[in-house]
Amino acid sequence: MNVSDYLFRRIRDAGVTHSFGIPGDFALPLYAAQEKAGLKTIVMTHEPSVGYAADVYARIHGLGVAIVTYGVGTLNMVNAVAMAYAEESPVLVLAGAPEVGWQVGDTLFHHRVKSPATQLRVMREVTVAQASILDPTHAVEAIDEVFDAIRRHSRPGFIEIARDLVFAPVTVTPAPVARPAPPNREALDEAVAEIVARLNAAERPVICAGVEIERFDQMPAFRRLVEKLNVPVATSLMGKAVLPENHPNSIGTYFGRIGPDDVRKYVEAADCVLALGMHLSDVDVGFDSALLARRRMIQATADGVNISHHRYPGIALADVLAALLKADGLTRHGFAGFARSAPQSAAAKPWGTGAIIDELNRFLTPAHVVIADTGDCLFASVVLRAEQFIGPGYYASMGLAIPGAIAAQIARPNWRPVVLIGDGSFKMNGVELGTARDYGLNPIVIVLNNRSFGTLRAADRDREYYRVRPWDLVGLAASIGGHGIRVTNIEEFRAALREAQASTGFVLIDAQLPEGDASPTLLRLGTEYGGKIRVE
Amino acid sequence: MNVSDYLFRRIRDAGVTHSFGIPGDFALPLYAAQEKAGLKTIVMTHEPSVGYAADVYARIHGLGVAIVTYGVGTLNMVNAVAMAYAEESPVLVLAGAPEVGWQVGDTLFHHRVKSPATQLRVMREVTVAQASILDPTHAVEAIDEVFDAIRRHSRPGFIEIARDLVFAPVTVTPAPVARPAPPNREALDEAVAEIVARLNAAERPVICAGVEIERFDQMPAFRRLVEKLNVPVATSLMGKAVLPENHPNSIGTYFGRIGPDDVRKYVEAADCVLALGMHLSDVDVGFDSALLARRRMIQATADGVNISHHRYPGIALADVLAALLKADGLTRHGFAGFARSAPQSAAAKPWGTGAIIDELNRFLTPAHVVIADTGDCLFASVVLRAEQFIGPGYYASMGLAIPGAIAAQIARPNWRPVVLIGDGSFKMNGVELGTARDYGLNPIVIVLNNRSFGTLRAADRDREYYRVRPWDLVGLAASIGGHGIRVTNIEEFRAALREAQASTGFVLIDAQLPEGDASPTLLRLGTEYGGKIRVE
Repeated sequence: MNVSDYLFRRIRDAGVTHSFGIPGDFALPLYAAQEKAGLKTIVMTHEPSVGYAADVYARIHGLGVAIVTYGVGTLNMVNAVAMAYAEESPVLVLAGAPEVGWQVGDTLFHHRVKSPATQLRVMREVTVAQASILDPTHAVEAIDEVFDAIRRHSRPGFIEIARDLVFAPVTVTPAPVARPAPPNREALDEAVAEIVARLNAAERPVICAGVEIERFDQMPAFRRLVEKLNVPVATSLMGKAVLPENHPNSIGTYFGRIGPDDVRKYVEAADCVLALGMHLSDVDVGFDSALLARRRMIQATADGVNISHHRYPGIALADVLAALLKADGLTRHGFAGFARSAPQSAAAKPWGTGAIIDELNRFLTPAHVVIADTGDCLFASVVLRAEQFIGPGYYASMGLAIPGAIAAQIARPNWRPVVLIGDGSFKMNGVELGTARDYGLNPIVIVLNNRSFGTLRAADRDREYYRVRPWDLVGLAASIGGHGIRVTNIEEFRAALREAQASTGFVLIDAQLPEGDASPTLLRLGTEYGGKIRVE
Repeated sequence: MNVSDYLFRRIRDAGVTHSFGIPGDFALPLYAAQEKAGLKTIVMTHEPSVGYAADVYARIHGLGVAIVTYGVGTLNMVNAVAMAYAEESPVLVLAGAPEVGWQVGDTLFHHRVKSPATQLRVMREVTVAQASILDPTHAVEAIDEVFDAIRRHSRPGFIEIARDLVFAPVTVTPAPVARPAPPNREALDEAVAEIVARLNAAERPVICAGVEIERFDQMPAFRRLVEKLNVPVATSLMGKAVLPENHPNSIGTYFGRIGPDDVRKYVEAADCVLALGMHLSDVDVGFDSALLARRRMIQATADGVNISHHRYPGIALADVLAALLKADGLTRHGFAGFARSAPQSAAAKPWGTGAIIDELNRFLTPAHVVIADTGDCLFASVVLRAEQFIGPGYYASMGLAIPGAIAAQIARPNWRPVVLIGDGSFKMNGVELGTARDYGLNPIVIVLNNRSFGTLRAADRDREYYRVRPWDLVGLAASIGGHGIRVTNIEEFRAALREAQASTGFVLIDAQLPEGDASPTLLRLGTEYGGKIRVE
């Protein structure tokens, strides 16, 4: 067995069938080894997309793999890996590296920056564990450590392999499988007892659910707990759809003063907020417009429990959920449903992002996965009801949605991706849709085309450099192998959705909105958040 | 005067009129301040392009400025900044940053990765100097230090400004202008005396010229020295056109066994090689196929002089050139011209990259600037004769050429950019041409369309993942506001060049080559370099 045999065996053992990448000369042995191992790389057009695709595959599958070349490849996806770090996505970045002999001394080879270690040093800032394979003797342990860290923290890890060591023999001795240390039972019992007491004492408790429930594989346990407690559930933006939004206990997405008012009132009036797997980042709870009093809160995350103003460190969400499910004496509450404000009829809202979201609420089925890019497409999605939803609700980088749609359909061929993206984001990497064509995928892409960086305009005012000059997106879609439909009103949009649903190729719906159009959510965001920035 | 007044005054003082960027919320005050200062940002579609454009503007202008937002913006251009570092391009990256209050403590704000300092820590790995403005008291000195380092090293620097300090008042006391330390005169005299003796003793000397001659503003001095010495000049790939290639002393580009054989023979037969401003990186001199014996070499770079096997550290190229120009007793050599192999008639080469280069040698005028991306477009350019040439001949990242063409024409409106790019590179960021349309620019873009990552294929063999699936580039060009012409033979190519030359908008020439087409240069590169990689 050699270094790459071992590496790709671990990747296959994690259930991964496809990686994402762009080949380059330092990575050629890795690519050849992968091919031998029966894995397939989806070749993207540009490395940022490689990172976004691996990220979304990881969110769905529990591990996503990017294979890129030394320097130019790795350094071109730093932002994507940073997003995976921030949003707790278990991505493995696998990079080529120079021969051992080139990594010492002053050889000036291509793709070198300050030193041969530049890519490793950069990746330390955006990954949770790193291995640079320069000696086959320690390769197995080094690879294992990165895999274990990725799984434990649900964050990206990095492995680079000197080009001349990819086929170096290694000895794999059956090592004891690394298991997480058992929880501190006494601390866990104390925390859970306190949680039980607080939940039982509450008259109007609410659960706020975040994305760690999905990242740490706790969706079934969480659902059982919700049904045991019978407490209403609001999600954060990142946590959207960790409980299907048609579940009777779902009350929608809580997004502070920016989100739907009925959800806000319900959550903020609760006398006990059980926040599970959410981190209260600014975007995730409505740009700091959330009013969640610490004294009424219980917050359990992957690495600890906070109750009011005290903390139980090192107590994992999964252990808390398991203990609550086993706990005797938990009161079943009397939640009897929540009259969510019905989606307005399309006629009620003028043509724009708001009307599009309402229409999607009628269109979406459980087979759709909605992937929102950053901008109004993300913020307006607060009132979307989706069974599966992916969006960069913490890191808020543009560029995730289209590569993500490709990865989502590779990971779950029976899902139909629906992308919501602004025209500014679309210009960044929308042509990656050509790759969807290459691999026979058929995402439905809705471009919210308001000829603006709408979020900036909403936060400030109209300025020349917030304008996005139009492209002929229908022509562009055709040129990269898909079908484009331009729509200018809700009836055309509805017809386009029907046409797209029936298509076997990708369909781009160019939703021509009024210039600078903004959803009600974005308008509130502009007031709330923009007011805090001194722009002059 | 406030922080941004001072910053943009320094930028304007460097003769910069345009920056490149994408606005984002942490950078809004910077954008507003720039607008007030009378500078204009060319808004690109994607941050990698922002970096490449600033790089090319810097290569032409002596300083190029990128303005991006915190985290997502900066981290999305790491590769571009790394290229500027490797290729000694004086770029200033100016980034937004969180408020001072957010930079301490654990606030979870959007675009944050591991800590508020992640972008600064990453940029340390790819820039020569960094400033994080968290206190206006030291802002002026910190800004000055970055500007001075950029100029001294001709490499990128980084400044981030906390969003709430952009308009903070500063006191600017007239500081002594930082001047480089004077050279060690004794060491310089000793080195120059040795160089003079060696040049005088040589019977068949040659000059090899690298890109530092341009980067450190030595082109006029260099040309005078060449004419004083009357010695033939070969350039490295990076140094291409530091002496116009129609100059009587130019013998072309030296690229080891991979480049033109007549140049190789001439250079390798010389009894004294005066290498000026070149670093002998692998790509720059033919992937290590150069045979330049140290015992016959004099190498003067920005930071030292090597003669045979000994070194004079700290002696700058500019000082050596000045001293040689003043030196008495330098023998004038008897170089009487070099019969460069004439470009073959188009009929002589079959349709392909080689024939296209020959045709360009007939087409190019002194008003054209050729910008080659990485791949065969770069390697085949070894035999191109250009007055202005820009290519990533050391770092060899894909993606420079199209944003670079935009920047080149912004920097020199009377230049007409001619881009050479492969179809793989074009997919990465070719749609950036839409930005050329937005700003009224008209580059001529030649896509060498061989449906392959040709360099990888040449270095290895045909594999499924080296294939690039075709797009309809003519349709794509139209969709983003330009004109596309598909050509399938040399007559159509010639006609397309004529049509492009007359166009006021951008023109994309889709040169449909045989699949896997490779220039003679690339075929030699494949044999020479590919043979060293064990792919399996």
